[in-house]
Amino acid sequence: MKQYKVAILGATGAVGKEMMKILAERKFPISELHLLASERSVGTVLEWQGKPISVELACESAFEGMDIVLGAAENDIAKKFAPAIVKAGAVFVDNSSAFRMDPNVPLIVPEINPEDAKNHNGIIANPNCSTIITVTAVNALNALSPIRTMIASTYQAVSGAGAGGPIELAEQVEALRTGKSIETKVFPHQIAYNLIPQIGGEQFEGYTSEEMKMQNEGRKIMHLPDLKVSCTCVRVPVVRSHSISVQMHFDRKITVEEAREVIAKAPGCKLVDDLAKKEYPMPLETSDQDIVFVGRIRPDLTDENGLCLWCCGDQVRKGAATNAVQIAELLIDKE
Amino acid sequence: MKQYKVAILGATGAVGKEMMKILAERKFPISELHLLASERSVGTVLEWQGKPISVELACESAFEGMDIVLGAAENDIAKKFAPAIVKAGAVFVDNSSAFRMDPNVPLIVPEINPEDAKNHNGIIANPNCSTIITVTAVNALNALSPIRTMIASTYQAVSGAGAGGPIELAEQVEALRTGKSIETKVFPHQIAYNLIPQIGGEQFEGYTSEEMKMQNEGRKIMHLPDLKVSCTCVRVPVVRSHSISVQMHFDRKITVEEAREVIAKAPGCKLVDDLAKKEYPMPLETSDQDIVFVGRIRPDLTDENGLCLWCCGDQVRKGAATNAVQIAELLIDKE
Repeated sequence: MKQYKVAILGATGAVGKEMMKILAERKFPISELHLLASERSVGTVLEWQGKPISVELACESAFEGMDIVLGAAENDIAKKFAPAIVKAGAVFVDNSSAFRMDPNVPLIVPEINPEDAKNHNGIIANPNCSTIITVTAVNALNALSPIRTMIASTYQAVSGAGAGGPIELAEQVEALRTGKSIETKVFPHQIAYNLIPQIGGEQFEGYTSEEMKMQNEGRKIMHLPDLKVSCTCVRVPVVRSHSISVQMHFDRKITVEEAREVIAKAPGCKLVDDLAKKEYPMPLETSDQDIVFVGRIRPDLTDENGLCLWCCGDQVRKGAATNAVQIAELLIDKE
Repeated sequence: MKQYKVAILGATGAVGKEMMKILAERKFPISELHLLASERSVGTVLEWQGKPISVELACESAFEGMDIVLGAAENDIAKKFAPAIVKAGAVFVDNSSAFRMDPNVPLIVPEINPEDAKNHNGIIANPNCSTIITVTAVNALNALSPIRTMIASTYQAVSGAGAGGPIELAEQVEALRTGKSIETKVFPHQIAYNLIPQIGGEQFEGYTSEEMKMQNEGRKIMHLPDLKVSCTCVRVPVVRSHSISVQMHFDRKITVEEAREVIAKAPGCKLVDDLAKKEYPMPLETSDQDIVFVGRIRPDLTDENGLCLWCCGDQVRKGAATNAVQIAELLIDKE
């Protein structure tokens, strides 16, 4: 089996570290793993599969000879290095939002549109975390009858803001316990025992950038150019796993039984839907996993062609690192 | 000014204690305040306006001579004592759900349908907490054009489950900090750093009792018998104040500017809606107040006659105790 030279751009962040873990877990065929980061982290030694790897400087020459570069950095870093990565002949699987809506860049959830990956020109984008979790949950329904509209309200964990998110939540909980003053750095307001109904800046008609991703990325992934989505993104004091309350309107009526049946069989999904037994997706039970849990499937009481459901998934794994590694798996020779 | 004999049924619970506080705050004209509870609490002394009051046994004879009984007990207790309260000639303002959908019992949010209170037959029901907060937020829009459908996702604080809710959250956070095992008594699962997408048991087509209240009570309060609501109720690790993400469909298009204007003037509402300044309703900033905060008002991107918004309010106060005292104020002679 062919072995690949892989680099992680932004290896020292929460998503970068998770990518290292998932490459090992999924036994990705790697001959060399390079961990790239900014000057500040150069020389840091991280352990991978029992061996130490020194973090190297992310610079244009660092991509020479690489087959695959997994991007776990911010948009500006992704934009800065993309030309050098492509020029080096590597494929850039990028987790930032820099290239997601570029018509020349495929946007992939491997369970949904793996064939789109073939049309890449050196860059493949990894979608937004809440979007990945939601489309993984609803795509089996979309195959039954196209989704025309979605109303989504998210409940997003603090780890979605990077490694600093859980630290800030823990520090605030501790400050409250010990009577110290609350500091806010990562989030715009206190998140401990609070909710913040803003993720990202304003983008369109009062919707934030994070809220618009559900519509715009959802259209591209599910091949639904006319999909309309109204999304409300809310940060909640949960450490890990995003949850989404979704109402969908279809061309035809889909019964709850039909929906349960296709979701139970859908790749990447687990049906957890028994209210009488108090069984439904919850962040705690979906963390550190790659599966999107789906439950609370009900007829929409406002629209006979509608359905409501609740889904949960680990946004650091399936919502970011695992999905990126799954995309990389589409690129390799499996012989 | 006439002075009234008032009893609180279930005075030792979270809502009962808040009712005592609010009666004092609002200077309700009281000649005698009786605190009624089960045998277990009899003899407990609670302070009210600087004076000690001994808790008395809730029994049929306890209501004799009362003018107003504020109910802060469970459905079974409310049902058990309602006949004796009515027979004693008092008006029973009941916070349980026992009588809310009874066609002979008005269901009142004083800012919305105070005139309905006139038709009481001895019992007036106080609506569900999330419903009060949501209808207080949206009723000004309903006056512009009738609300036909609503999709609501709630983010409900632990204090909505009574005094035991915040204690359980605090105990679980402490258990996690000290490495002890988590106990669940009030909630069906761990609530610390988690979300529980179930409040109440199953009632209709997979919806819980709590979820159906938004439609059924909303219809009665806003005089919208055909209102259709799909609601998802979720418990979140927030101590106090419920939040609701709402999408509404109207007969006609209501612009965001129109909506902001009427909500800013609506009784019981405060418009907090400036995303650029990071200003929006949050549970922390709405706790211990009687006002429902409304923000994130946006056009619904799925429906040209739709709007989306986010609202927050203290469910122990406006969602329960304050609304009940406001109902009692409708009954008294203000001369």
